[in-house]
Amino acid sequence: MKRSAGELKTFAAEVLAKAGLKSEDAAVVAETLVFADLRGLESHGVSRLPIYVKRIKKGLVNARATMRMVNEDGAIALLDADNGPGQVASVKAMDIAMGLAQKQGLGACGVRNSTHCGALAYYTLRAVEHGMIGLAMTNANSVMAPWGGREPVLGTNPISVAAPVGHGEPYVMDMATSAVARGKIMIYAKKGARIPLGWGMNEEGEPTEDPNEALKGAMMPMAGPKGYALSLLVDILSGVLTGSAFGKGIGALYDDFSKPQRSGHFFLAIDIGHLMPPELFQPRMDEIVGQIKTSKPARGVEQVLIPGEPEFAAERKRRREGIELVPKVREELLALKEELGVAAEI
Amino acid sequence: MKRSAGELKTFAAEVLAKAGLKSEDAAVVAETLVFADLRGLESHGVSRLPIYVKRIKKGLVNARATMRMVNEDGAIALLDADNGPGQVASVKAMDIAMGLAQKQGLGACGVRNSTHCGALAYYTLRAVEHGMIGLAMTNANSVMAPWGGREPVLGTNPISVAAPVGHGEPYVMDMATSAVARGKIMIYAKKGARIPLGWGMNEEGEPTEDPNEALKGAMMPMAGPKGYALSLLVDILSGVLTGSAFGKGIGALYDDFSKPQRSGHFFLAIDIGHLMPPELFQPRMDEIVGQIKTSKPARGVEQVLIPGEPEFAAERKRRREGIELVPKVREELLALKEELGVAAEI
Repeated sequence: MKRSAGELKTFAAEVLAKAGLKSEDAAVVAETLVFADLRGLESHGVSRLPIYVKRIKKGLVNARATMRMVNEDGAIALLDADNGPGQVASVKAMDIAMGLAQKQGLGACGVRNSTHCGALAYYTLRAVEHGMIGLAMTNANSVMAPWGGREPVLGTNPISVAAPVGHGEPYVMDMATSAVARGKIMIYAKKGARIPLGWGMNEEGEPTEDPNEALKGAMMPMAGPKGYALSLLVDILSGVLTGSAFGKGIGALYDDFSKPQRSGHFFLAIDIGHLMPPELFQPRMDEIVGQIKTSKPARGVEQVLIPGEPEFAAERKRRREGIELVPKVREELLALKEELGVAAEI
Repeated sequence: MKRSAGELKTFAAEVLAKAGLKSEDAAVVAETLVFADLRGLESHGVSRLPIYVKRIKKGLVNARATMRMVNEDGAIALLDADNGPGQVASVKAMDIAMGLAQKQGLGACGVRNSTHCGALAYYTLRAVEHGMIGLAMTNANSVMAPWGGREPVLGTNPISVAAPVGHGEPYVMDMATSAVARGKIMIYAKKGARIPLGWGMNEEGEPTEDPNEALKGAMMPMAGPKGYALSLLVDILSGVLTGSAFGKGIGALYDDFSKPQRSGHFFLAIDIGHLMPPELFQPRMDEIVGQIKTSKPARGVEQVLIPGEPEFAAERKRRREGIELVPKVREELLALKEELGVAAEI
């Protein structure tokens, strides 16, 4: 059964409010989850509601967080999220970075003491809506071994950047710095399928095709030493520099109910107009996009795609046809509806 | 025969000055080249002198460039390099970004109408010397196919970031966004060896193990779609946003003597002290580095390394023992010495 984005959002917002979030915060978190479901990123969609509710109820996500500016000096600000919902902190922080960029062309905002913040492209596309280039990164609990190692020290630490394109959809990069998302390995495990070499290693540090061994061992970085360096960079900017937890210190979303996650994020915005009038920038973006899209495709490929293009196609389709929930996810959501006495349908 | 860093620098500076660069500019370029040779990045070292001299003499690198600020508003500046030496423009731009960061915590400087700028880590380590985190990127002429394509549209577009570590050497990431550097494929071709699948494709867009086919076809991005997205990001910030050439429009260093390269760069600096006193930041960096270095190494690995560590080890060794020039490079340098009447020995 398919649900419209609006129906899903109403349901998610009511769930989160019943769990304890302020209604305006519940709306923000619901919006980002449904954004992910629309764009084919189900792993960051409403399937996260059960764990969010569990953590809110245990007080590990602070439903009454008082987020405060630690530093608003100059072009780089710092927000303490007081262990509140990561999405609420992230929207605030991106808006702060954009405000600074509006005044000075460039602005950044770090976030400390935060929690899981969902799909980063939501925040970078927010910058694009205001004619800016947006960057977002977040650290995450340690599941990945550094290159040359076999013990999880770093997270899948994703990075997103989005930029406006004149006549097309925006450029959107949104990627984990691990070879694949951990959720993908979990899906292979459930299916009983082998994973390609290069995704994960067993506890002895040997590359494995067995997803269960990889889940017990460690994930591997994308592109070997390069993904390792990028992942560490994300942790330096999001965790070390903001005063948040980092490396092995970050609380695991699903496995650690002894403490708040204390994850950190980093947002940056560039106001294009400070360097070049938009009427000059846009045709230049159209030109590079055109160079790529008219370039010869590889065999079996119809047209080369711009980063973000598959997600926009998914979004158009799902806005038209609705969002199909995986049966197991719908079951979990029905259980939440019952548990919390939610009126909205799912 | 080995040469000390000082000897190489003296020679390189004299070559560049005799070719026409102002002596202070020649010294800057020489310094960056020897920096690369010291750190084991020979592909960006004095082996570049012949092509630099050729382009200076043809006027494609403007020896009398008048670099000017296009924009110094707010926290993001823009420098027009007037087709002058890329290294001179890059040092200026990183210094401008650092100056802005010193005042406001964060600063950036784009560069347009520039030329090949060598190893990016030189500029990011300059920021580290001043207690800052530095980022540098540059676009380059199109040799790489976008993911899903088979025609070169993007360059190897490298990115470097460096950050200070309390008691250790700095963290230094410096990587091409292609699977490998093009020079590496050229070395395999010279040796008559096969290249691993995933480095390049033939003109039909098929993965190839033949380095000569790959050189005629296209290089492949690191980590497939992720490296493609990163490479395009570098071109958006360095080329599209700065008003420089981008994509297929950038002049090829070795193959195109019809026009200046017009490459673009992008530099960013974060002044750590604006967010956290260095005496707090340093032990935090020590801690994350310690978590990594004390983590279990993979089989056959003695200790997990921090990004940049192999290059610092090379630098220590070469400062002690001198730098060995590849015979073919030394021959080319001897030819330059003769051609330009250089007094310094090589």
